[in-house]
Amino acid sequence: MTAPLVLSMGDPAGIGPEITAKAWARRETEALPPFVAIGDPRAIARVWNGPMEAVAQPSDVAAVFGRALPVLAVPGAGDVTPGAPDLEGARCALQSLELAAGLAVQGAAGALVTGPVSKAQLYRVGFTQPGQTEFVTDRCGIARDNAVMMLAGPSLRVVPITTHVALADVPRLLTIDLVLAKARATVRGLRRTFGIAEPRLAFAGLNPHAGESGEMGREEIDVLEPAISILRSEGIDCAGPMAADTMFHPRARARYDAALCCYHDQALLPLKTLHFDEGVNVTLGLPIVRTSPDHGTAFAIAGHDVAEPGAMIAAIRLAGEAARRRTAARACG
Amino acid sequence: MTAPLVLSMGDPAGIGPEITAKAWARRETEALPPFVAIGDPRAIARVWNGPMEAVAQPSDVAAVFGRALPVLAVPGAGDVTPGAPDLEGARCALQSLELAAGLAVQGAAGALVTGPVSKAQLYRVGFTQPGQTEFVTDRCGIARDNAVMMLAGPSLRVVPITTHVALADVPRLLTIDLVLAKARATVRGLRRTFGIAEPRLAFAGLNPHAGESGEMGREEIDVLEPAISILRSEGIDCAGPMAADTMFHPRARARYDAALCCYHDQALLPLKTLHFDEGVNVTLGLPIVRTSPDHGTAFAIAGHDVAEPGAMIAAIRLAGEAARRRTAARACG
Repeated sequence: MTAPLVLSMGDPAGIGPEITAKAWARRETEALPPFVAIGDPRAIARVWNGPMEAVAQPSDVAAVFGRALPVLAVPGAGDVTPGAPDLEGARCALQSLELAAGLAVQGAAGALVTGPVSKAQLYRVGFTQPGQTEFVTDRCGIARDNAVMMLAGPSLRVVPITTHVALADVPRLLTIDLVLAKARATVRGLRRTFGIAEPRLAFAGLNPHAGESGEMGREEIDVLEPAISILRSEGIDCAGPMAADTMFHPRARARYDAALCCYHDQALLPLKTLHFDEGVNVTLGLPIVRTSPDHGTAFAIAGHDVAEPGAMIAAIRLAGEAARRRTAARACG
Repeated sequence: MTAPLVLSMGDPAGIGPEITAKAWARRETEALPPFVAIGDPRAIARVWNGPMEAVAQPSDVAAVFGRALPVLAVPGAGDVTPGAPDLEGARCALQSLELAAGLAVQGAAGALVTGPVSKAQLYRVGFTQPGQTEFVTDRCGIARDNAVMMLAGPSLRVVPITTHVALADVPRLLTIDLVLAKARATVRGLRRTFGIAEPRLAFAGLNPHAGESGEMGREEIDVLEPAISILRSEGIDCAGPMAADTMFHPRARARYDAALCCYHDQALLPLKTLHFDEGVNVTLGLPIVRTSPDHGTAFAIAGHDVAEPGAMIAAIRLAGEAARRRTAARACG
C-alpha cells in the first residue's frame, strides 16, 4: 500500500487551488491516486464549490478521498483575492511547501507534488533558493548537480544540462563532469521513476548541425563525445551528439527515452511546443518522488474558472506511478 | 501569365530526381504550377518510369507539362548510381544550379526551386559558397545581410538572425544592425512572397525566459529591445523579446506571421519538430523568388523509391504562389 501523495497548492492567489480542486473532481475518470492538498482551505473555497474535508495527517486521507478533497491546513493566507498575490499568501505558499516536503522526506507521504509559486513573491518573504526544485533538493540533502530537472510530456522527456543561466555562459559551464552527473542521475531516474530498465539517452549538440565535425564549434568534440564515451563504457545506451533541430520530430523521438540538452531553451522549447498544457516537471536523483505541473501561477486567469488542470493531473498521475514503483521495489528488495 | 518555374534537381545521386518526378506525377491533385526540371535526364530515368520530354527553353514548358515532365538537360552526370555521389554528379548539380539561377535572374523563369545538393561534394569541384542560398544571393547582386533564410511550414515561419556559426559566437554577432536588416527583409518578403499586407513579427529572446529583465543575460535589453523600438517607429508590428520556449505552441503561433530567432537551432528546432517532412526554405530579400525543400540529399535512401516528395511539392507550390503575386503586382504597378 502506497502512502497518499502530498500536494502543496502554491501561491493561494494563483491557479494552484483551482487546478488542485479540479484534479480531485476528476479523480475517478483520471484514475488518480489519493492525495491531500496542503495550504489554506479558504483559497480553495474562493474558486470552487465542491466538498472539502480537513485532515490532520496523511494517514487520514484514504478514508476521505472518495467523498471530499482532503485538505491539510497551514496557517491562513489572510483574505485571498485570486489574481492579487500578497505577502501573507507568499508565506502560506512557503509553509505549504515546507510541510509537504517534510512529510515526503519523513516517508509519511508517498510522493510530493508542488503547485505553482511566484518566485518574486517568495523572495520577499525570505526565500533564498532559486526555485522549489533546489529547495526540495536541499531538504533531501542532495548535491544540486546530482539532482536533475526533467520535463516530461506524453511523447518526450527532456533534461537541460545547464538551466537558468545566460546563453553566453553555457559553453563555459558545459563540462564533462556536469554532463556525466546529469546523465547518470537521468538514467537512475528513468529506472526508478519511470520503470525503464535499459534507458536510452540522446544527447543534443550545442552547435548547429552538432558542430559539423568542429566546423561550427568544438563542444561536441571536447565535451560531449568524451562524456558519451565514458557513459557507454558504463553500459549506458547513448546516441549523439545529434543535430538538435532534427531530433524532436515524431520518428526521432521514438528512438530514445530522454533527450539530454545543453541549455534551457534547447530542452524546454521542444517540450513546450509539443506539450504546452500537459508538461510535468520531475526532479530525478532524490530519495523522494517529486513532480510539479510545468506552468506558473497564471495570476492573470486565477479566479475565472478557466484554468486547465491537465498538467496538474499529469503531475499527480506520474507521482503516483513512481511512488507505486518505489514501494514495489522496496517490497521486492 | 506567369513564366514556368525552373527546378534544379540537385545532386543526381540524391533523392532530388525522384522527388522531382513524384511531384510532377502529383501535379493535378496538388494543383502545381508548370515547372521544368534542370539536370541530367538519365538521373530521373534510373529511379522513375514516367514520361519525360526534353525542352530547349522555359517557354516550351507550358505545352509539355500536361503530358510529360519537361526536362532541360545539362551536360551529363555520367553513370549515375543512386546513393553513390561522385564528382561528375557534383559538376552536374552545379551546372543545373547555374543554369536555373540564370534563367530566373533573366526573367525567363517565374521562380527558382533548388533541389538538395551535397556541399561536401560541391566543394570538391570548386564551389566556394557556404550554400545554395549564398550562391543565389550573389548571383542576384544582393548583400548577404539583406537576404534572409526563412523556413516555412504549414503553421510556422521562422527566420534565424544568425545562421551557421558556433553557438558561443552568437551573442557577439547579434547586433542591432543585423536584427534590423533581417527584420526589414522579412517584412518585405512576407508582403511580396506571402501576400501579407501587415506582417506581424515575434522576436525570440536569446536567454532563458528572455533574460528575466537582465537577470540571465542582457542581449534582450541591449540589442533586441532597441531594435524592436526602431522597427516599431517604422510602423512594423513587433512582439517580444519573448521567452523562446513558450512562443511555439499552437495558440502562441497564431499571434504572429514570422518568428525572428537569434540562432540556427532556436529557429529550426521548432520548425523541424512540427513540420519535419514539409518545411520549405525560402530566400527573402531577392529580386527573384527562390524556394527549396528543407532537407538534404538523403543518399542513404536514394533509389529505393521511398523518398517523400512532400517538402518538394510545398516548395513548388509556394514558389508558384509567390511568382503569381509578383506578376500581379507588376501588372497593377
